[in-house]
Amino acid sequence: MPMESEQLEAVVMDIVAGIRDAIIKHHVTVDQYRFAVDYLGRLADARELPLLLDVFLNVAAVDAENEVTKGSPQAIQGPYYREDAPAVTDRLKTLDHDNERPLVVRGQVRDIDGSVLPGAEVDIWHSTPTGKYSGFHDNIPVDYYRGKLTSDSEGAYRVATTAPVPYQIPNQGYTGALLEAMGRHSWRPAHVHFKVRKPGFKTVTTQVYFEGGQWVDSDCCSGVRDDLVRRTTQEDGVDTLTVDFVLDRAA
Amino acid sequence: MPMESEQLEAVVMDIVAGIRDAIIKHHVTVDQYRFAVDYLGRLADARELPLLLDVFLNVAAVDAENEVTKGSPQAIQGPYYREDAPAVTDRLKTLDHDNERPLVVRGQVRDIDGSVLPGAEVDIWHSTPTGKYSGFHDNIPVDYYRGKLTSDSEGAYRVATTAPVPYQIPNQGYTGALLEAMGRHSWRPAHVHFKVRKPGFKTVTTQVYFEGGQWVDSDCCSGVRDDLVRRTTQEDGVDTLTVDFVLDRAA
Repeated sequence: MPMESEQLEAVVMDIVAGIRDAIIKHHVTVDQYRFAVDYLGRLADARELPLLLDVFLNVAAVDAENEVTKGSPQAIQGPYYREDAPAVTDRLKTLDHDNERPLVVRGQVRDIDGSVLPGAEVDIWHSTPTGKYSGFHDNIPVDYYRGKLTSDSEGAYRVATTAPVPYQIPNQGYTGALLEAMGRHSWRPAHVHFKVRKPGFKTVTTQVYFEGGQWVDSDCCSGVRDDLVRRTTQEDGVDTLTVDFVLDRAA
Repeated sequence: MPMESEQLEAVVMDIVAGIRDAIIKHHVTVDQYRFAVDYLGRLADARELPLLLDVFLNVAAVDAENEVTKGSPQAIQGPYYREDAPAVTDRLKTLDHDNERPLVVRGQVRDIDGSVLPGAEVDIWHSTPTGKYSGFHDNIPVDYYRGKLTSDSEGAYRVATTAPVPYQIPNQGYTGALLEAMGRHSWRPAHVHFKVRKPGFKTVTTQVYFEGGQWVDSDCCSGVRDDLVRRTTQEDGVDTLTVDFVLDRAA
């Protein structure tokens, strides 16, 4: 366990106290508690514990790191990252879709002193125009809609692809039923994932959302922060998403 | 789900906020969060989710009910209740144990106005002198160390048995490993369980602990309340535990 006994005790007992406060405040009955325990057991049997926890709590650990980092704000990684994405130069491989919209993603990588960082790996992945992820859905090969760029001598990167779209998280099981019972939807706003790495620097894992996009104000995973939303610009008639990164030095 | 959508949303989001506060306060990292998610998955695979939740949270739902009841204070039921316990009159069946100590359990059942309640069912269960429960451990038949008494015309009940002892909750799995990593023990203090029922009244499910008993001040399940601890008296040379009950009218 990557935590000392005293810290673990403190964290667990503060979590327990937080849940206890909610139970007392809302007068949760023993029957309702027992129902919840049974429901969580069935949810776990259906292998949905990571999904449930990530919907509600992953962002908390990310924000705990955001409070102390000097680098770019982080976001949840999500379940669709693939370490084995291909190296790319100027274009992600995409499939032909009737409703696809071209998108350019570009930006610059610097350190916290403002110096440009050449040779940083900018690993990008995002959904298809139908809200799927390669390597996970519809047998789309892993070298589509994802790839690892390398920042140039000016720290810059630039890649052409198609725009991602909003999609629903897996909602046919116990987690989806819980969200529905709570009166919540299961949509995530359209976003582009990034993982930016360079030896000697702290890795930035993040997502960027589109200003004005559907569900940006009500992400089912509560992953949207103001500093992760970008307005696209038009460059040569193509929607262009500019995302610069600041990498903090590794501890 | 025995809860309206608005209440469910409020409870779940307050639970999430409580956990989030603990994660932020203690600077839990994403790696530590991911470790915890994996650990909970393995714990759930080992069928320990009810055990984990009951150790830390069952008492919260009980105390939420205690805040609004006018009857006797409730306690956690625990996993060793048996609906099929036998009817008894003045003695629970016990096995011969070298270190057994005789115990009489007696008391009176009243309503919230102070009137005696004849004909109430006083269902009692407790551990053997080695910390086991009939119907669950060591093939002890279910009619030992448990039984259903009926309060007499004065609302009184009285039964002879042997004294229960402290015992450890199941601690060979993931929940036990977590408690150990937190620097905690897995002991429960000696206690007698009660479930007191009468048609038209709210059932009281509770436990009573022995004043000065080992682990009373550090129950691993946090189930001890001051109003659940009793000092035994000597009657005819036998330790006697007196537990009176007040039953609130059913809603």
